[in-house]
Amino acid sequence: MPNLSDVTRGRLLYGGDYNPEQWPEETWHEDVRLMKDAGVNSVTLGVFSWSKLEPRPGERDFGWLDRLMDLMHGNGIGVVLATPTASPPPWLGRLHPDTLPRDEDGRIEWWGGRQHFSHSSATYRRHAAAITEDLAARYATHPALTLWHINNEYCTYDHGDEAATRFRAWLRARYGTLEALNTAWGTVFWSQGYGDWEEVMPPRRAHYLKNPAQVLDFRRFTSDMLLECYAAERDIVRRHTPHVPVTTNFMPLWFGQDAWRWAEEEDVVSVDLYPDPRDPLGAQHGALVQDMTRSQARGPWMLMEQAAGPVNWRGVNHPKPRGLNRLWSLQAVARGADAVCYFQWRQSRQGAEKFHSGMIGHAGEEGRTFQEVKRLGADLGTLAPQVSGRPVDASVAILHDWHSWWAGAQEAHPSRRVEYPEILRAWHRALWEANLPTDFAHPEHDLSRYRVVVVPQLYLLTDAAIANLLAHVRRGATLVCGFLTGVADEDDRIRPGGMDARLRALFGIRTLHEWWPLEAGESADCGDWRGTLWSEEIEPDGTADETLPYRGGELDGLPAVLRKGRAWYLSTLPEPEALRTLLARAAAEAGVRPVLDGLPAGVEAVRRGEVLFLLNHGRDPVTVQVPGTHRDLLTGETVTGRVTLGRRGVAVLAS
Amino acid sequence: MPNLSDVTRGRLLYGGDYNPEQWPEETWHEDVRLMKDAGVNSVTLGVFSWSKLEPRPGERDFGWLDRLMDLMHGNGIGVVLATPTASPPPWLGRLHPDTLPRDEDGRIEWWGGRQHFSHSSATYRRHAAAITEDLAARYATHPALTLWHINNEYCTYDHGDEAATRFRAWLRARYGTLEALNTAWGTVFWSQGYGDWEEVMPPRRAHYLKNPAQVLDFRRFTSDMLLECYAAERDIVRRHTPHVPVTTNFMPLWFGQDAWRWAEEEDVVSVDLYPDPRDPLGAQHGALVQDMTRSQARGPWMLMEQAAGPVNWRGVNHPKPRGLNRLWSLQAVARGADAVCYFQWRQSRQGAEKFHSGMIGHAGEEGRTFQEVKRLGADLGTLAPQVSGRPVDASVAILHDWHSWWAGAQEAHPSRRVEYPEILRAWHRALWEANLPTDFAHPEHDLSRYRVVVVPQLYLLTDAAIANLLAHVRRGATLVCGFLTGVADEDDRIRPGGMDARLRALFGIRTLHEWWPLEAGESADCGDWRGTLWSEEIEPDGTADETLPYRGGELDGLPAVLRKGRAWYLSTLPEPEALRTLLARAAAEAGVRPVLDGLPAGVEAVRRGEVLFLLNHGRDPVTVQVPGTHRDLLTGETVTGRVTLGRRGVAVLAS
Amino acid sequence: MPNLSDVTRGRLLYGGDYNPEQWPEETWHEDVRLMKDAGVNSVTLGVFSWSKLEPRPGERDFGWLDRLMDLMHGNGIGVVLATPTASPPPWLGRLHPDTLPRDEDGRIEWWGGRQHFSHSSATYRRHAAAITEDLAARYATHPALTLWHINNEYCTYDHGDEAATRFRAWLRARYGTLEALNTAWGTVFWSQGYGDWEEVMPPRRAHYLKNPAQVLDFRRFTSDMLLECYAAERDIVRRHTPHVPVTTNFMPLWFGQDAWRWAEEEDVVSVDLYPDPRDPLGAQHGALVQDMTRSQARGPWMLMEQAAGPVNWRGVNHPKPRGLNRLWSLQAVARGADAVCYFQWRQSRQGAEKFHSGMIGHAGEEGRTFQEVKRLGADLGTLAPQVSGRPVDASVAILHDWHSWWAGAQEAHPSRRVEYPEILRAWHRALWEANLPTDFAHPEHDLSRYRVVVVPQLYLLTDAAIANLLAHVRRGATLVCGFLTGVADEDDRIRPGGMDARLRALFGIRTLHEWWPLEAGESADCGDWRGTLWSEEIEPDGTADETLPYRGGELDGLPAVLRKGRAWYLSTLPEPEALRTLLARAAAEAGVRPVLDGLPAGVEAVRRGEVLFLLNHGRDPVTVQVPGTHRDLLTGETVTGRVTLGRRGVAVLAS
Repeated sequence: MPNLSDVTRGRLLYGGDYNPEQWPEETWHEDVRLMKDAGVNSVTLGVFSWSKLEPRPGERDFGWLDRLMDLMHGNGIGVVLATPTASPPPWLGRLHPDTLPRDEDGRIEWWGGRQHFSHSSATYRRHAAAITEDLAARYATHPALTLWHINNEYCTYDHGDEAATRFRAWLRARYGTLEALNTAWGTVFWSQGYGDWEEVMPPRRAHYLKNPAQVLDFRRFTSDMLLECYAAERDIVRRHTPHVPVTTNFMPLWFGQDAWRWAEEEDVVSVDLYPDPRDPLGAQHGALVQDMTRSQARGPWMLMEQAAGPVNWRGVNHPKPRGLNRLWSLQAVARGADAVCYFQWRQSRQGAEKFHSGMIGHAGEEGRTFQEVKRLGADLGTLAPQVSGRPVDASVAILHDWHSWWAGAQEAHPSRRVEYPEILRAWHRALWEANLPTDFAHPEHDLSRYRVVVVPQLYLLTDAAIANLLAHVRRGATLVCGFLTGVADEDDRIRPGGMDARLRALFGIRTLHEWWPLEAGESADCGDWRGTLWSEEIEPDGTADETLPYRGGELDGLPAVLRKGRAWYLSTLPEPEALRTLLARAAAEAGVRPVLDGLPAGVEAVRRGEVLFLLNHGRDPVTVQVPGTHRDLLTGETVTGRVTLGRRGVAVLAS
Repeated sequence: MPNLSDVTRGRLLYGGDYNPEQWPEETWHEDVRLMKDAGVNSVTLGVFSWSKLEPRPGERDFGWLDRLMDLMHGNGIGVVLATPTASPPPWLGRLHPDTLPRDEDGRIEWWGGRQHFSHSSATYRRHAAAITEDLAARYATHPALTLWHINNEYCTYDHGDEAATRFRAWLRARYGTLEALNTAWGTVFWSQGYGDWEEVMPPRRAHYLKNPAQVLDFRRFTSDMLLECYAAERDIVRRHTPHVPVTTNFMPLWFGQDAWRWAEEEDVVSVDLYPDPRDPLGAQHGALVQDMTRSQARGPWMLMEQAAGPVNWRGVNHPKPRGLNRLWSLQAVARGADAVCYFQWRQSRQGAEKFHSGMIGHAGEEGRTFQEVKRLGADLGTLAPQVSGRPVDASVAILHDWHSWWAGAQEAHPSRRVEYPEILRAWHRALWEANLPTDFAHPEHDLSRYRVVVVPQLYLLTDAAIANLLAHVRRGATLVCGFLTGVADEDDRIRPGGMDARLRALFGIRTLHEWWPLEAGESADCGDWRGTLWSEEIEPDGTADETLPYRGGELDGLPAVLRKGRAWYLSTLPEPEALRTLLARAAAEAGVRPVLDGLPAGVEAVRRGEVLFLLNHGRDPVTVQVPGTHRDLLTGETVTGRVTLGRRGVAVLAS
Repeated sequence: MPNLSDVTRGRLLYGGDYNPEQWPEETWHEDVRLMKDAGVNSVTLGVFSWSKLEPRPGERDFGWLDRLMDLMHGNGIGVVLATPTASPPPWLGRLHPDTLPRDEDGRIEWWGGRQHFSHSSATYRRHAAAITEDLAARYATHPALTLWHINNEYCTYDHGDEAATRFRAWLRARYGTLEALNTAWGTVFWSQGYGDWEEVMPPRRAHYLKNPAQVLDFRRFTSDMLLECYAAERDIVRRHTPHVPVTTNFMPLWFGQDAWRWAEEEDVVSVDLYPDPRDPLGAQHGALVQDMTRSQARGPWMLMEQAAGPVNWRGVNHPKPRGLNRLWSLQAVARGADAVCYFQWRQSRQGAEKFHSGMIGHAGEEGRTFQEVKRLGADLGTLAPQVSGRPVDASVAILHDWHSWWAGAQEAHPSRRVEYPEILRAWHRALWEANLPTDFAHPEHDLSRYRVVVVPQLYLLTDAAIANLLAHVRRGATLVCGFLTGVADEDDRIRPGGMDARLRALFGIRTLHEWWPLEAGESADCGDWRGTLWSEEIEPDGTADETLPYRGGELDGLPAVLRKGRAWYLSTLPEPEALRTLLARAAAEAGVRPVLDGLPAGVEAVRRGEVLFLLNHGRDPVTVQVPGTHRDLLTGETVTGRVTLGRRGVAVLAS
């Protein structure tokens, strides 16, 4: 199969979404001049062009796109060509109201924004296939075409009648019989037993709590329906261009998509990444997404969208201060990106995203933003030969699973304060601050390459996943496991004892008496540190090698942390420094070292292939000790023993 | 008529909702063993069994229930048998969409949760009657049957078209003519005059404020329609088993039901009670509900549901720490309960309430929760002979009325900060902390047994209620009355002067110039104490015997509190200690004494029949002075002069 | 054309909405007695009388109104007669559901409140015209009739199908062709190109952000449709009574109405004004509305509604403390009002507004409220001869435009914290506290009479408006301009550079690199003061005469404020004292002086015609220095050099 290296060919891609339909043709030529000035070598065309390509049902207008493809090719800029199916033209909704999605209250989502399509609508799918077919046929042999981009940020849902029909078919395929569905959903509770498939519905507005297994399956179904939409278009373009790789751009840690499964259906994994420039943990958030995307890609990946300046969808949208765009872009490269792209090349003057920055902002060529874009383009060109295509190695894996998240993020659980993404972030942060390179993995993946496996929280664990974990520990690996893990099986059925018996035995737990979730502002005294969010009333079975107890309160003396051999269990979320210390110790005992010792706070060190990236996320210049002599690829200078990084400074050191 | 003593037969009932449909039959036998171990003598079956009993329209499957009834009977466990009508099977909604309720925005409440039935649907009522009929016929003579439990926590509403039709009929019965309705609703305001009954609607979504009298009548109607549903099923089972009492379980202080009126239609009054284990006033909340339920029952009552551990519907669901389940259960017994039951016997592993605790939790037989359940079962057995069926006497009554609450809890009133249940709680708390036994009463009830009557707030008072109050004071009783009382008549029409003239004369008020509601964080200086929530610009008429004035501010020198003879008026809500002091003084002057003098803080003393309950709600052990010599029924020990209660400890003393 | 002086005839109008339909006829005579007692000379009849006038379709019942008109006339009280079209009778909605509006989610707004009419409904318009026609015909020659009051507080919207049809017609009239609409709305973005007029819709619920130009045009359309409704009724009554002026009552600074355009269609401009008595800036809020209404009226105006005491729609509704009703009423007179009227004469006992105060409250004739109403009536009678019809002059104008507000108040802008009305208030407050008389003006108005023009924020500026501003500065006027001005053109298209190039040149700005909106709690250090809400990364062009820089942070040294000649640009919102100081300096340099020098804090001085109003908004009595000798019209006393104002005191001084 084709892959990202077929697109990069030893380069780092640089560019972004390009929507020249918004501008007169004279601007196109100005754009090309500025792109070349900035080192842009890739643009994405056509993401939202359906109404332009098919202004009336069945019509086709490819002329403008022909000219653009030729223009790009003539200037050495590759084209990532998008199917336009994320935003159907108004005529589709008007002529075919069945293509419009409904929310759980039955309210229609109309056109006038974007993504007003039902994944379940046969009419939508038919029209999307037709435009994709014609687009692929027309540009299959065009030399500018480097990569297919299917749709955009798949993220919709539908609770309407056609979705109900498809949901039933999906459930029939999953369960075979109504009896099996009734068992899996526990419908005997609250008199929900189904006697006819036609009675089964999406989880629509209800008087009180919904059936959680129904909600879980609807989330699975939604991800799968969107994936069907993706795959249908992918198969069309692949038929025309078997040599051209295909991607769709993920939103990071997006609730609605099982990205592990999706990634398997892509030739190239790409992601859109928008940390808040004001977020003190913005760099860590970026690192998390980069680590996860690299893990999904199993190698280099593509940063499909980021912002050169502010976005437009937060409450307060902060610009990127001087140097931040470069710093965060090089961080992505350090963590495996072979493409640094933006939404979008030229900031719009109209439409819903006119306040979303572009590589050229409203301030134009003289604006600070574009000046910094040019500098970064030069840097990427410099780095490419020693970076493009190179791997990032990690000995630690964080386990993550969408199905567990879906099952856990429901109403009527022990605490609404437990938010899975926050827990994932807290654990990743501890590893990131300890400079321990980290992959993500699915709990049923082959984990053999990881000496340390951490489970921030996997509320739902299948039997296969539990067996996988146990086998890995049996092989000598370290496992550090957070609370509320192994509680439910694949059907969201609570495992006897409230936590899987095999896991309890692994950690030395006899009885899990009660969960004691903590209120906002409350914490649990654990001696040298405090636990947050959660605590547990655990009775150990006496086999643990080490116990850190709670102090005071109702849980006085009961274990906050248990260690039995290389298996750790944390019944609370330690405050950040304590979690970092604990994970660093577990890693050290497993023989896993940080990238660089003695790093100053705020400095991130990442090794990609043979080069070492040093990134200063702090506010002040800082000096980093680096044993030996290196060459800084960015400056060409030789560095011995230490290197000084300015504010938001980066060094890329090669031996 | 049959009553609770026909069920208890000198015992205290102990048990809970039992949903064995969720478990294989081998678990049923395990359950029976554990029930007997724990002293369980009553289970509730069938609450949500409709789809199990009638899996397809018109089918019946009673076999599993036959076996359970026999099993219970064979083991000496009585059965509270529920009609399953709170959660219709999916087929009902699918085949009869007219059974689904609509909210005020017209949105349907679908099946997939529970309680998705319209009280007004003739189709629903017909199907509910049919299954009730067959259930009653089948088990009328079964020896396990002790009590009928109709539906569950009636609490729904409907704004749909069939509800509109029934609303019109209800209004026609109430008012006779459209003219009378127009007058009662004041439809001349804002051009709402009705010229045809068909124009009258439930209060659906409107552009601006709704007609408050229409909203009030819709609340009355909703309570009455639910009561019709209840009564229809009650009449069916009563026809089959005139000797078996009937109940339906209330939610305490539930907005949607006029429980005074409902209680008159029940043979046994039962309630579901779920104080937050973390609430520092949880015990007082429990006491309030217990006092109110006892008052509705006019004698012993049934605690139909509580939680042995955490619930699942709060933001953070706290377990019950060691001893709390017992403490709060014995508190209920002290305050008149002859039954201590739970939702549910065995915690579910699936469904929307799988995180709601059971008497046997996920931790199973060895879990702390079940161990405490066993201890409590033994205690109840010990206490029963001297407690079951015994009365709790009170000389103080708090007046409470749902119609007043409904009229007061509307938009566009003087202050959204005035929440009736909070005010009720504040006044009850003052009496509870002063250890003054307290009943609740409806303002039109016979009050002759109460030396002190307090009115926290009765915004709406009928003429009959006002006459009742005046006559009671005339007879020498003490009345303590909070602000915003007697403002509106039965149609929510403001009485001339903004407060009934007879009440003004009673308290010595000439003119009520203005209400001065207080902002959050604001309070009114009243000298030794501060008023909260509210203040008033009152001009006294010079007849009051005692005046406590406001100090400073716009109301400087005007009366905060007026006393004229035994009639007190409080134009603000005193902070807790001040309200307690004031009510204790009024009670003392009326010759009403606390249960026990010199009680330490946090200790509750309640006399039921001949025995004295002492309950320690504080965090530390405490010694209570008790004149004379008693036997502690729980320990069998003799107690002289004083008794020490451990943390969450209870003593039950008999002379 | 007739105007307000035809109604006042040298008097100040005093009175209010009178809804005698709610009362028995004997109360009418009581009312007349009390009105005369209070100096009431004007009442508004019929505002919500449709169902009374037309109880069944096509019926007419004018008898009660005939009697009232005669009664008023017989007692010398003029009648402002309202068309009753703000609240259709229930029968209209029942027989014609097409008259009911729908929100953006498609939810119907039912009758049962008020204003449940779709401005776009032909059926509604037909029925409204018919009742208006008959009302006008009947009372055209009645001697009590002084003024027509059309509908009430026009403020509704509709997203339904008939509104969609009218929206298309409105757009067709505006744009002529679909191509022009597509261009203006920038529909090429997100594939929104329209190929058929039938595809164009109101902005209904969408999956993600809506097209901002579509939203902007829908707001324009909504204002215009309501104006069509108004004009249709106005034309009917004008045909019958060409000599009687016509008004409709505005809500102040109401988002949904372009009151500049509406005012041009009225003979009399009137407004409803309800500052919160507890708001420390309530007086300033009143002043702002009064200044704006006077500017719309281009002379004396009518205070159509205010509250004598509390309103009923706030969270906590505070009464007016002693003296406040008089103080704020005389403030309105000082700022140009020739009428002081209330909602309503007699407080209702029923209906949704029964807790909204009246001139006679629930406390009746003896209540403090009515006592103060009587005193005020006497004061107005005293002042009228020297005040009625007199102008208020101002040399400063604040520019304000609804279209700019509409374009700016949309989702996905740089900061949700930027709320236009708050910014307008902040700038008006600075001028009010500096005692600088201020008008409001539309940015395309003739500004020649103003020496100082301030622009708090005009995000959208047409080319005509920009030319108007530039010409005014060229003529020697001072312009002080706040941030986020001149960003967008008439179609909400961002101007190149992110701010109009002519404006940038005017202020000395080369490049506007980035907006730096501030978080809550964040401020920008500007040396002696702090900026709030916003800051900017500006590169000056070196032509400014004066620069106040930011200190520290990312913007260190960049200009917070630029002055080039008489043109000022503020890239942040200075804290109140700093903004006041800055505007006072700009005014002083332009030769504009405050009304009176050396005023104590909290004292407002306003000159109307030949008399000087002094209003004490502070909590304590205060002495004001007033050079020369005056007569206080209210007391008749002679005042030399100084005058002392009591708490909430007022002096009205004539030379």
